[in-house]
Amino acid sequence: MEVSGLANTPQPPYYAVTFTSIRTDGENGYAEMAERMARLSSDSPGFLGMEHAASDGLSITICYWESLEAIAAWRQHEEHLLAQQKGYEQWYDSFATRVCRVERDNVFSRPK
Amino acid sequence: MEVSGLANTPQPPYYAVTFTSIRTDGENGYAEMAERMARLSSDSPGFLGMEHAASDGLSITICYWESLEAIAAWRQHEEHLLAQQKGYEQWYDSFATRVCRVERDNVFSRPK
Repeated sequence: MEVSGLANTPQPPYYAVTFTSIRTDGENGYAEMAERMARLSSDSPGFLGMEHAASDGLSITICYWESLEAIAAWRQHEEHLLAQQKGYEQWYDSFATRVCRVERDNVFSRPK
Repeated sequence: MEVSGLANTPQPPYYAVTFTSIRTDGENGYAEMAERMARLSSDSPGFLGMEHAASDGLSITICYWESLEAIAAWRQHEEHLLAQQKGYEQWYDSFATRVCRVERDNVFSRPK
């Protein structure tokens, strides 16, 4: 799943969930889960887009959503709940999830 | 300047500015400016923290702020205005800046 570009989000307001994390050592099935969660979230109602980057041990994923209701539904998705549990048990040394209302944005694309 | 860890933010609400970007080819003084902007913003009133990661051509920087007024002041900082201008002229193929109100967060740190 391609998440290395800019998300094509609508006019604000909309919502962003930022997930910033530092992994524990070891793979422990992480990559497979991450791929699965990216696919599942992008298939969820109200999903608007995703941006991801990782370097120097820090991973940042931002998911954009239409509404708090869409975020709540994704948060309670059965497979996502299992992934969250594994995150606490095994995958993450530390993380922060932040639920944000996007008040305004400024998008630039260089003319070709 | 070390920005590869998790930001130690206070209880919500507070504000986040996400800056997601794809560079043009070439250095053109970018790294020096990025370092300078990181230092200047962290010295600005109301700055709460910063998180950064870059991979596969995509860079994500999230700055946290106490208030919209703090964001407005940083946005209008003289050197930052020059950097913004160079960003449009030269450094970025595309970018998105999003000003967000952090409504709630969930922070985890594994017990040592």
